[in-house]
Amino acid sequence: MIVAVTSADDVRIAAFRDVRERDLVGRGSGFMAEGEVVLRLLARHMARTGAAGAGHRLEALLISQRQADRLAGLLASLPDDLPAYVAPQAVMDDISGFPIHRGVLALGRSHPARDAGALLDALGPRAVVVAALGITNHDNMGGIFRNAAAFGAGAVLIDRASCDPLYRKAIRVSVGASLTVPFARVADAGALLDLLAARGFAALALSPSGAERLADVVPPARVAALFGTEGPGLPADILARTRTVAIPMARDFDSLNVATTCGIVLHHLAQAGRVD
Amino acid sequence: MIVAVTSADDVRIAAFRDVRERDLVGRGSGFMAEGEVVLRLLARHMARTGAAGAGHRLEALLISQRQADRLAGLLASLPDDLPAYVAPQAVMDDISGFPIHRGVLALGRSHPARDAGALLDALGPRAVVVAALGITNHDNMGGIFRNAAAFGAGAVLIDRASCDPLYRKAIRVSVGASLTVPFARVADAGALLDLLAARGFAALALSPSGAERLADVVPPARVAALFGTEGPGLPADILARTRTVAIPMARDFDSLNVATTCGIVLHHLAQAGRVD
Repeated sequence: MIVAVTSADDVRIAAFRDVRERDLVGRGSGFMAEGEVVLRLLARHMARTGAAGAGHRLEALLISQRQADRLAGLLASLPDDLPAYVAPQAVMDDISGFPIHRGVLALGRSHPARDAGALLDALGPRAVVVAALGITNHDNMGGIFRNAAAFGAGAVLIDRASCDPLYRKAIRVSVGASLTVPFARVADAGALLDLLAARGFAALALSPSGAERLADVVPPARVAALFGTEGPGLPADILARTRTVAIPMARDFDSLNVATTCGIVLHHLAQAGRVD
Repeated sequence: MIVAVTSADDVRIAAFRDVRERDLVGRGSGFMAEGEVVLRLLARHMARTGAAGAGHRLEALLISQRQADRLAGLLASLPDDLPAYVAPQAVMDDISGFPIHRGVLALGRSHPARDAGALLDALGPRAVVVAALGITNHDNMGGIFRNAAAFGAGAVLIDRASCDPLYRKAIRVSVGASLTVPFARVADAGALLDLLAARGFAALALSPSGAERLADVVPPARVAALFGTEGPGLPADILARTRTVAIPMARDFDSLNVATTCGIVLHHLAQAGRVD
């Protein structure tokens, strides 16, 4: 439902105001997604399942006039009860508090927090999940979800120390994947390992000091790949309880970004485990 | 050589002033590196080769008092003719124009632009090089260099449309790798392919539409992996002249970050090509 808006003070778009300030304060169970690519992804999900990604819900769009003209077909395909507020670019920048280059903002309400055990139970006998522990950087979190989506991981589990995958920047960096891959929080790494063991998931802990070389790993049917923070990595007590896996690197530069590491691992698990 | 500085107006540290403004204006052949990890990397290179990375030169350091105390051993290991200006954190923030959380800045002079052909000639009979075309995002450029260093690529070739690997943020994201992996610019992709062919480098062009699956690629002895911009990717005329390689992805989410893609490819080439 297209709704023309001509003033930044229009109360109907108050929820889009001061994007950056609200990033800091938090949106509770709300989230903000940006850009055409992400909106297309969510529209595909809505067409198929009724939900914008993994059970989330879109509540309103704010779109620049130029983008609304360009994306008329996409907007027409959206549910009619989803308001798409269309504003001149200047009004849009005024509302958000900074120039919105992409001209597409979407506000939504996230699925209630999931139970990690239930999430694992819903996966099939062959499944890959990602576990991210202590990931506090939204770029890395977004990158991890992007890889999880690209390589068909069934879920992402994160600990309490990790940042919010539905933070605006994390959604953007994930190209929407943090909205489409279901995730759940666990209390800590110990609880995670108990949960995985109880459901027959082999835990592979990535570490530069890992005992096995990634390229030699034959993927177990149900497998979880664990990633820790850059720098310190996964704690020693976790490494002691898991199969530890290393990615061989140059002697004088053994440093990979954690999201890149995740991509390398998921690619290996997908390819080495593939049934042609 | 430790030099105490007590005022942001001290002319000896004028080159460190207004870091962000100078990012925009450019530093000519100068570069600015940040953080302890990068400084340690450059110090190791200087101890071994006299140069800070791939032929670059450090000219001066600006370090907060707290970091200077903590890194006394590292500073003592540096050449005595390299001035390390030590300032209280407040003075340091005042000079740079923003709070320098890491408290370590290094100014340097880059090696004169290299000739791509000469760079390839200097590599051995088994070598991997990365070619990045149209990479305009400094995070991606930094990530590509970090992967190149981690997996021992011999060089990075970039086209004129790509951004500067020695831009401050690119150095930071690369964790210093853009200073240690030698690179050269080529005019365009056509010139790159000619250059590679003349030196016996097989060109593998990464593309979602690639004919070969990455996991099936047996690494040629001399090989160049080509990466294009996210979104459009490598141009069709380049794909027509190269072996095209795909990374299989989920049907509804075929989107990987270009630096992550680079990491996946370099890991495969290193592992599939290894001689145990």
